[in-house]
Amino acid sequence: MGIRKRLRRNRTQKKGMPPGSLVYIGEEKTEKVSVTAVEFDDQDLNEYEDISLEKLSEVFHSDKVTWINVNGVHNVQLVDEISKMVGLHPLTTEDILNTEHRPKIDFFEDHLLGIVKMLDLAPNSTDLDIEQVSFILTENTVITFQEKHGDLFDPVRLQLKESKGRIRKTGADFLFYSLLDVIFDQYLIIMDEMDDRIAELEGMIMENPDNHSLQDINEYKNTILQLKKTVWPVREVVNKLINRKVSYIKEDISFYLQDIHDHIVQANDMVETSRGQLYGLLDVYYSSLSMKMNEIMKVLTIVSTIFIPLTFIAGIYGMNFTNMPELDWQWSYPAVWIVMIIITGLMLVYFKRKNWF
Amino acid sequence: MGIRKRLRRNRTQKKGMPPGSLVYIGEEKTEKVSVTAVEFDDQDLNEYEDISLEKLSEVFHSDKVTWINVNGVHNVQLVDEISKMVGLHPLTTEDILNTEHRPKIDFFEDHLLGIVKMLDLAPNSTDLDIEQVSFILTENTVITFQEKHGDLFDPVRLQLKESKGRIRKTGADFLFYSLLDVIFDQYLIIMDEMDDRIAELEGMIMENPDNHSLQDINEYKNTILQLKKTVWPVREVVNKLINRKVSYIKEDISFYLQDIHDHIVQANDMVETSRGQLYGLLDVYYSSLSMKMNEIMKVLTIVSTIFIPLTFIAGIYGMNFTNMPELDWQWSYPAVWIVMIIITGLMLVYFKRKNWF
Amino acid sequence: MGIRKRLRRNRTQKKGMPPGSLVYIGEEKTEKVSVTAVEFDDQDLNEYEDISLEKLSEVFHSDKVTWINVNGVHNVQLVDEISKMVGLHPLTTEDILNTEHRPKIDFFEDHLLGIVKMLDLAPNSTDLDIEQVSFILTENTVITFQEKHGDLFDPVRLQLKESKGRIRKTGADFLFYSLLDVIFDQYLIIMDEMDDRIAELEGMIMENPDNHSLQDINEYKNTILQLKKTVWPVREVVNKLINRKVSYIKEDISFYLQDIHDHIVQANDMVETSRGQLYGLLDVYYSSLSMKMNEIMKVLTIVSTIFIPLTFIAGIYGMNFTNMPELDWQWSYPAVWIVMIIITGLMLVYFKRKNWF
Amino acid sequence: MGIRKRLRRNRTQKKGMPPGSLVYIGEEKTEKVSVTAVEFDDQDLNEYEDISLEKLSEVFHSDKVTWINVNGVHNVQLVDEISKMVGLHPLTTEDILNTEHRPKIDFFEDHLLGIVKMLDLAPNSTDLDIEQVSFILTENTVITFQEKHGDLFDPVRLQLKESKGRIRKTGADFLFYSLLDVIFDQYLIIMDEMDDRIAELEGMIMENPDNHSLQDINEYKNTILQLKKTVWPVREVVNKLINRKVSYIKEDISFYLQDIHDHIVQANDMVETSRGQLYGLLDVYYSSLSMKMNEIMKVLTIVSTIFIPLTFIAGIYGMNFTNMPELDWQWSYPAVWIVMIIITGLMLVYFKRKNWF
Amino acid sequence: MGIRKRLRRNRTQKKGMPPGSLVYIGEEKTEKVSVTAVEFDDQDLNEYEDISLEKLSEVFHSDKVTWINVNGVHNVQLVDEISKMVGLHPLTTEDILNTEHRPKIDFFEDHLLGIVKMLDLAPNSTDLDIEQVSFILTENTVITFQEKHGDLFDPVRLQLKESKGRIRKTGADFLFYSLLDVIFDQYLIIMDEMDDRIAELEGMIMENPDNHSLQDINEYKNTILQLKKTVWPVREVVNKLINRKVSYIKEDISFYLQDIHDHIVQANDMVETSRGQLYGLLDVYYSSLSMKMNEIMKVLTIVSTIFIPLTFIAGIYGMNFTNMPELDWQWSYPAVWIVMIIITGLMLVYFKRKNWF
Repeated sequence: MGIRKRLRRNRTQKKGMPPGSLVYIGEEKTEKVSVTAVEFDDQDLNEYEDISLEKLSEVFHSDKVTWINVNGVHNVQLVDEISKMVGLHPLTTEDILNTEHRPKIDFFEDHLLGIVKMLDLAPNSTDLDIEQVSFILTENTVITFQEKHGDLFDPVRLQLKESKGRIRKTGADFLFYSLLDVIFDQYLIIMDEMDDRIAELEGMIMENPDNHSLQDINEYKNTILQLKKTVWPVREVVNKLINRKVSYIKEDISFYLQDIHDHIVQANDMVETSRGQLYGLLDVYYSSLSMKMNEIMKVLTIVSTIFIPLTFIAGIYGMNFTNMPELDWQWSYPAVWIVMIIITGLMLVYFKRKNWF
Repeated sequence: MGIRKRLRRNRTQKKGMPPGSLVYIGEEKTEKVSVTAVEFDDQDLNEYEDISLEKLSEVFHSDKVTWINVNGVHNVQLVDEISKMVGLHPLTTEDILNTEHRPKIDFFEDHLLGIVKMLDLAPNSTDLDIEQVSFILTENTVITFQEKHGDLFDPVRLQLKESKGRIRKTGADFLFYSLLDVIFDQYLIIMDEMDDRIAELEGMIMENPDNHSLQDINEYKNTILQLKKTVWPVREVVNKLINRKVSYIKEDISFYLQDIHDHIVQANDMVETSRGQLYGLLDVYYSSLSMKMNEIMKVLTIVSTIFIPLTFIAGIYGMNFTNMPELDWQWSYPAVWIVMIIITGLMLVYFKRKNWF
Repeated sequence: MGIRKRLRRNRTQKKGMPPGSLVYIGEEKTEKVSVTAVEFDDQDLNEYEDISLEKLSEVFHSDKVTWINVNGVHNVQLVDEISKMVGLHPLTTEDILNTEHRPKIDFFEDHLLGIVKMLDLAPNSTDLDIEQVSFILTENTVITFQEKHGDLFDPVRLQLKESKGRIRKTGADFLFYSLLDVIFDQYLIIMDEMDDRIAELEGMIMENPDNHSLQDINEYKNTILQLKKTVWPVREVVNKLINRKVSYIKEDISFYLQDIHDHIVQANDMVETSRGQLYGLLDVYYSSLSMKMNEIMKVLTIVSTIFIPLTFIAGIYGMNFTNMPELDWQWSYPAVWIVMIIITGLMLVYFKRKNWF
Repeated sequence: MGIRKRLRRNRTQKKGMPPGSLVYIGEEKTEKVSVTAVEFDDQDLNEYEDISLEKLSEVFHSDKVTWINVNGVHNVQLVDEISKMVGLHPLTTEDILNTEHRPKIDFFEDHLLGIVKMLDLAPNSTDLDIEQVSFILTENTVITFQEKHGDLFDPVRLQLKESKGRIRKTGADFLFYSLLDVIFDQYLIIMDEMDDRIAELEGMIMENPDNHSLQDINEYKNTILQLKKTVWPVREVVNKLINRKVSYIKEDISFYLQDIHDHIVQANDMVETSRGQLYGLLDVYYSSLSMKMNEIMKVLTIVSTIFIPLTFIAGIYGMNFTNMPELDWQWSYPAVWIVMIIITGLMLVYFKRKNWF
Repeated sequence: MGIRKRLRRNRTQKKGMPPGSLVYIGEEKTEKVSVTAVEFDDQDLNEYEDISLEKLSEVFHSDKVTWINVNGVHNVQLVDEISKMVGLHPLTTEDILNTEHRPKIDFFEDHLLGIVKMLDLAPNSTDLDIEQVSFILTENTVITFQEKHGDLFDPVRLQLKESKGRIRKTGADFLFYSLLDVIFDQYLIIMDEMDDRIAELEGMIMENPDNHSLQDINEYKNTILQLKKTVWPVREVVNKLINRKVSYIKEDISFYLQDIHDHIVQANDMVETSRGQLYGLLDVYYSSLSMKMNEIMKVLTIVSTIFIPLTFIAGIYGMNFTNMPELDWQWSYPAVWIVMIIITGLMLVYFKRKNWF
């Protein structure tokens, strides 16, 4: 919910501006947007922190494979200048600036724009941290726009530096695949985490259901819904990636993309399974409420059913009629006690038989 | 519901008339229908308020890009004359006059008819204000028929006057896109608003569920249903717009249409999410009712379970048997009190253990 | 339900007869089956009531556009003879005689058979009156078989006589379209009526839910189900009409068919909306039951919780112990009263705080 | 359920045998498997009861149209020999022997194998009697394998003998169609019967819901589920029959197949309707339970609310305080009675207003 | 759930490694991975236990049909070396090592990779034992990778040795089919078992529903969900097998594959049926809870309603008014008793009429 709220301001502001107007849509931020770049071939690797625009342009046009990473997209001007450098359509730039965009992929003659979401799950809450990552892939450059400064791409950076695997020997398309792979692997890890938490919640509800339980279930349902919305369209994105033939993605990468596709399908399956479990939890919750009610009613019924007849008997002999012969008999008082004990005993047997305690 | 009711009169009236008969279907209205026109190229811009039919015809046939806006469609004759000027099929005119029409798009040789809905949400109610807008797009004219006089198109008018963005430099198709864009952006803003309100309603139900809560949930469900019915078919409309090649929509506009498509898909997603949240609310509501019932029963059970046995004991010693030795013992009265206090104490411990208070 | 029951007899009778055997399946009827015919071109119009078979054959083979209307299909022999006159396949005749047939359309070389349902809603009940209408369309004849004598086609008859609209100037295909249009317009009117009734039922259930409410909801659900079964397949029928190119339907009629298609889609939407509202009603109903239960329990709990402790106190001082010093004190009786009033007051405050009354 | 259980033995036995091994899967049976044959053209008809294999082979290879009917498929050897005579693939024979097979149709160069289910509903139970019928259709032979000896095909036998309808004049394909028609007509009759029974059950539940009601609903749900599983795949079977062009089905039969298709679609619709009604019944049932609970609680609440306060008043004047002036007043006893009657009256008015009785 | 947990370690470990890195994902294991091989034509058969890699390579390249079975895939190096021997893509090897992979099939020029699941159901629990089996099929070799040492393939081994059926006379493709057939037959047996258990559970819940019942239902729901996830994608796998033309699967095998397809469709049907039954069970469970509540309330209401008025009467005559003439009458005490007995009798009649006991 929070995600949508922060959008309102900018969206209202944007309404009424000509289409293609560049406005940042997302959480308000003040941190400096930093740009890093890595330039490599299978021999050398140069890394640039906080690179200037001129240097960036130089790196972008070099023959080596280049990875430019922009941390934060709230600096509209910077994003605009990088976009112009690459030659993006204004509407593409607009999509990059809108951090609420649905995952999608658009193919152009000499580049593609991919928009996916990075996920993270806060340790003690159900709040999904959804961060948008936009990819520009050209012949030999990958540009990534991250909504905020993150460290998810560090393993790829490390592989590049240590020249592990195929990554240094192949082109920008394999780098692009590697970055996507890191993001989508994270989806499965998040789903595993959700799974554990739902199992834990189930245990808690079984033991002691309270009003908070339902709130928890609903929060998880919302989280699962968000997961679904994030993961589902990615399937289409990857499908398009596999089936579209473009010059800047080589044939031999398609096998790796198939692999990503398998992961996304599995993530979708896991989302569905978790959703099913949450609906099962609702049943558990309502059943527990009913069970508790039954228990309360049993206590009331047992106590009332035993003592109300006894009280009646006591009431009988509390009447003040002149002519009540029993009152004067020697053994009538203990006899009443015995009768009462027998009645109580019979009732207890009856309740026992009904399995009420 | 209200929307349908106002239709009845006209629909019943229409039944039995030959097809293609022009009858206005919608809310009865008496305001004057006004027609405005804007004529522009990248140099000049002429604006006409309350334009006469002759002048309109002149403007329509000029070489400049023209936008004719009809405020209100309940003047059947006027709509008919404009339709004839453009050369519409009688059934097309009939669709424009039927303000209850489902969103659709029809392509003809030299023009298209698009029907979509403008949405507005009254500030303190769940009533969606759904207003139909019909578009005629020809080679260099856009004609818009609005159900009532509105100001949603004002930003576009302003852009035209201030010649901001591409709008003055390109043809009628871009103007058409810009008008659609304004309408569909509004959808997302309405969905955001719905989202906030549902969250607010959730808070209220959690605190104190009453019969009114359910009514509120049902009203929101109806609103969401209406939203779905409004937004869902638009997806198909935009799809057709993208895929159909017609002479009066230039190739380079297709990118902008893709952008609209993304917005509509997102709006549909948001509708689904809101619907899911409303079903979650129903669960919250029923659970709150059950919780309240449990609480009531606990109070009854605690009080009954404590006092019924005590009353029984008091009843015992209110019996009038001659031979009740305890009655005459010195300490039996305080002893009874002590027994009663012990019983009460044990019960309270029992209830405490059961977490009943 | 009633519709199915009346079928049983004939269906069981039919089982075991060779396929293509002509048996009327439907409500048993004794009224005379009447045949009327209208023969017209844009100049003349001849109307025949209760036309004989020979005259019918003559009219059928004339050059003018002819509309033959058969009121009632329980006269198997008559239907058979008309069928033979037109040259229908025996199985087609069998379909016309089966008034329980699903809406469908079959195209032959020189004619088509269309089966749709006319709907009517009895004023004070939820019983849908579903009447089957079969259409035979040839080059210049329309034959309609109505299950019973109805007046729904009267407006078309009037248009023909008064030569209003296109209907007299065009061929049998336009007449066919006009008749379909009258039937499908009726669907929307029925759906409007259903909508109003459901809203009314909602009001009644909100006020006072009883066992009858549920029965009403279920009856409406059945009616909606029947509506759906009637309206849904018509979509396919109209689709086939639009897409199939046959010699006896001219090109220029296709636009009108598209119009019918729009109406059917809208009718389907309205059915779905009504179904959604009925499910909402079920929630209202169950919630009302729960609310009532809560109210009953509150009354019980308030009365019990106040008086059970007070009775206990009275019981205490009704004990007959010899040594109960309070009994002889001057002010103990009024003191007990004061204690009781204080207890009652505290309880009332407690219940007030809990919002129990 | 029973159907599946009997399968287990054979299935477990079969596991581990090479594919294509012939094992009968189904209810264990000991009755003799009998084979009958009818051989006819439009002139003559020869009928053979309990025909020997040699004679069968002779009849099979004759020029006349032949219908061979095998009652019972638990004689594996017999089925195998007939299969070999016709030249079936071993896996086809395996399918005939598996009486649990899903309805399907397989086309071969010179014959087809069709598997459908015959349905019967036991008079006083919800147990569907599902019997598998396999069809082999060659150029001029129909072979039917029935799971047990039945009489459903008797009408066709009668038509053949009395040479009614087209059946004697046309080929094996029309005979094949006639047999299918008899089976599928039965589906509609069963669905009508189900419909009646569900309506009856609804009446019973409305009147007096007990635990047995739910069991009944569930049994009907299972029956409907089985019906759906039986009827649903038949649609596909008939679709394939219509669309596949094979030498042994003549063109002019396709119209009859379309007729069968209509019946199957209608049967599917009826299954869906019945399922909807059963879910409505569940709502009726739960609502009745709630209503009954409300009624019980009302009785308790009325009695408790009236008598608990009265008992309190009686308790007051049962106290033994020395100083209770009212006790000695002349009219206090009748006054107490009057007060009690007034309280009771007020309460009754209150309950009446609440519509509690 | 357990299945997912064991994965976590390896998955987290894998994240950050270059794609195509070979890591075993699955339960940690220490047993030795054993490799067996069978080499045969229709004349000879050689069996090798615990074959060395050199010998394996020799067998693999022989002209005979070879079946290599790897028991356990946690020995990454061994799997890698076999993969290299066959010439697999590194990502294919990665899929074999990931025992959590979704069922799939990938076709290559000279081999295919199939991944399916073997199922087993522990005797007294709802835990499905899901074991992954990967198949490599080349021109004349089948390689199977089993997650653990199992005996499901023993019947095939036996058929090979005893040269039963077609298996020795045909190629690797038929062996491949036979192995798949054994696995999928097992699915149907598991589904039968599930069916029995659900029926048993239903009986238990009908008799005595407790909180454990719901847990059981949920466990079965999870099991069914897992079954669905396992069986559903297999349909697509088999579909691809049937439709894809590859050199290493001969035409004449396609008929057998169709047979497998029928089994999988049936298994899917059975999963759906079981799921429907489980939802029916939930209704039974909730209804039983309600029934029990009603019963408890009836006991309370009967006892309270009888004794509260009687106690009131006793209370009346326990009052100490001086002027209570009844107290001194001769027969008033027995008269009170008679009144009480009559009241009790009337109430019992009332409850009897209401069917409360």
